[in-house]
Amino acid sequence: MAVGPGTLPEFFPVAGVKLGVASAGIKKTGQNDVVVFELAPGSRVAGLFTRNQFCAAPVTLSRRHLAETSPRYLLVNTGNANAGTGEQGMTDALTCCQALAEQAGVSAAEVLPFSTGVIGEPLPVQKLVGAMPHALTGLAPDRWPEAASGILTTDTRPKGASVQVDLGGHTVTISGISKGAGMICPNMATMLGFIATDAQIEPTVLQTLANELGEQSFNRITIDGDTSTNDACVLIASGQYGGPEITQNSPHLATLREALKAVYLDLAHAIVRDGEGATKFVTIQVNGAAATGEALDVAYTVAHSPLVKTALFASDANWGRILAAVGRAGVNDLDISALEIYLGDVCLVKNGGRAAEYSEEQGQAVMSQEDITITIDLKRGDVNETVWTCDLSQEYVSINADYRS
Amino acid sequence: MAVGPGTLPEFFPVAGVKLGVASAGIKKTGQNDVVVFELAPGSRVAGLFTRNQFCAAPVTLSRRHLAETSPRYLLVNTGNANAGTGEQGMTDALTCCQALAEQAGVSAAEVLPFSTGVIGEPLPVQKLVGAMPHALTGLAPDRWPEAASGILTTDTRPKGASVQVDLGGHTVTISGISKGAGMICPNMATMLGFIATDAQIEPTVLQTLANELGEQSFNRITIDGDTSTNDACVLIASGQYGGPEITQNSPHLATLREALKAVYLDLAHAIVRDGEGATKFVTIQVNGAAATGEALDVAYTVAHSPLVKTALFASDANWGRILAAVGRAGVNDLDISALEIYLGDVCLVKNGGRAAEYSEEQGQAVMSQEDITITIDLKRGDVNETVWTCDLSQEYVSINADYRS
Repeated sequence: MAVGPGTLPEFFPVAGVKLGVASAGIKKTGQNDVVVFELAPGSRVAGLFTRNQFCAAPVTLSRRHLAETSPRYLLVNTGNANAGTGEQGMTDALTCCQALAEQAGVSAAEVLPFSTGVIGEPLPVQKLVGAMPHALTGLAPDRWPEAASGILTTDTRPKGASVQVDLGGHTVTISGISKGAGMICPNMATMLGFIATDAQIEPTVLQTLANELGEQSFNRITIDGDTSTNDACVLIASGQYGGPEITQNSPHLATLREALKAVYLDLAHAIVRDGEGATKFVTIQVNGAAATGEALDVAYTVAHSPLVKTALFASDANWGRILAAVGRAGVNDLDISALEIYLGDVCLVKNGGRAAEYSEEQGQAVMSQEDITITIDLKRGDVNETVWTCDLSQEYVSINADYRS
Repeated sequence: MAVGPGTLPEFFPVAGVKLGVASAGIKKTGQNDVVVFELAPGSRVAGLFTRNQFCAAPVTLSRRHLAETSPRYLLVNTGNANAGTGEQGMTDALTCCQALAEQAGVSAAEVLPFSTGVIGEPLPVQKLVGAMPHALTGLAPDRWPEAASGILTTDTRPKGASVQVDLGGHTVTISGISKGAGMICPNMATMLGFIATDAQIEPTVLQTLANELGEQSFNRITIDGDTSTNDACVLIASGQYGGPEITQNSPHLATLREALKAVYLDLAHAIVRDGEGATKFVTIQVNGAAATGEALDVAYTVAHSPLVKTALFASDANWGRILAAVGRAGVNDLDISALEIYLGDVCLVKNGGRAAEYSEEQGQAVMSQEDITITIDLKRGDVNETVWTCDLSQEYVSINADYRS
């Protein structure tokens, strides 16, 4: 199951970025399971990685390589996460970087590795190395759709976004792909996002954009509350758009930021829409919080509540479950008589109980839709936060219970 | 579904405590839905209530009455939670207390109200008041089994525990009942526990016991992570056992505490074993933590992980999911190469990855059992904590998705 059509967009090629794909035979289906990004010299890269303490070997190595030099290649494999693999995992990840570096004529530190798939199994290094020549010889700027498919695991469909925007007379292109269907499914794991632009962006501005936009998109979605050992999101700026460098004081930064944000949000939302067993795309909007922390506590408590999620699956306007989740979110001194809860435009809760004007029919009408917004106004301050999630269906349980059997 | 046989025990009557039941017609099935406890004069009562900010009217009123005077009656109804009902809910709860007080010849403050059931619907006060005479005329010390059934909602079976213990030559009796199948199911909500003993216990010791034992039992179980608006657990001491008052310095306090703890644990575990859709009873044991907070963070993150829970349902020894949950539990500077994870007696994780001696067959053997213990040794300190939970099945989704339809 998945929410909405979810077709791939027309991808604009990004000057300075080429993509290659190959099948290393890690995935038993024989589908492509290796993707290589080649970045032109002078490209700048900023990453945002999982906060899971059990982070995978490729995450540790990508962080290290990013700190050492500017990457020229990204090497992505699916089917094996190289996580929970101890010292051997680090050795294997490095061996793959060295092999690609040798074939491409760069240094190993210029290669960033990314893995997603089964946890705890040794990385099939020889298979991966064997697939590299095919991926490298096929490098081309227009292979975004194949790359989008080549990074998938339990996803039911590829995910991509692509926009162009004018920056002072120069056209900037932004294209990206993402994968993920559970926030974690350690057997076929992880959320990955790769966004590339031909804009030239000052390195600290690039890192700030990667952090902020990742935080507002990939870090605001949840399918099952689980965070993978391998999550990673990378922002690439090739610098080949022909215009001046975008700095903190650039008049075009705001425009670029909005265009990038649209791509980040599209890619993050596509993951929720393809959530395991998902039939609804749900926006949880918390307004009027006193601080970001409490806004997110409320939003995630509602988004993670199995009872709210099953009610959403059932298209049941069971507002008591939302109210109870808000009440247990850990916000001290919540004024329950002041706060308001809305389903779409319909007020559910006011004055500490069901809104007087509420009718079951109104609630039902909103709940029957595929895209649903729950708004919680805490009436405590000026902070607003948004989180996106999906419902919980029997199919989610089936997918995750039957996976390895 | 439910785990194990779950038959009611032989209940020992508790001197000074009588129980009455009645059908008020709130439950459409016509089953008993009203339970009254009558406590002899001089009884002492300590309560432990939900931390949900949206707590129900009866919770607020019970807290208030407990602060004012010693209760003589407990009035419990199922089928309606009187939660999310605003000012009217408070009025309705008080009206019921007044009606029972009038019929019993006590003051309204001597009645503690408890409700569980649909959230947000007005309490059917007239039905409840009309059922009181029947409950009162039937009061008897041996009606524990009927009371155990009379407080149920989505539970598939009644829950009780009863023990006797010798305290310095005097026999002390402890009997209790509980209900709950989801930690919250706001349509038919809540966890309730009522434990009565004929021991005479000094009031501050009684409150300490109620807090500590409730914390170590009812506050250490989780089915779906949701906390009800109506949760309450009450400890009654009638004082009629014939021995001296148990004080902080009493030589018998430790024995009494252990006997009470056994009853609390039995009642709490019975709720997990009857968890909605449950097929496994799971003990999450976290050892070697540096502090209680981090031990519970790890235990609950594992216990709430939908991926761990679906793996348990599938009897799949998917250790990567446990490892990933530990890694995202928010414990800073976790030494992943030091910690160890066990399934039963089988070591799953050591040295940052799968234990060298582990085999899939060993893990599978443990996973096939109905009662499963997952032990996580953080190797950071001396604090140990235990949490009990169950698995996540398609039936859980079905129960909670189909409930109101």
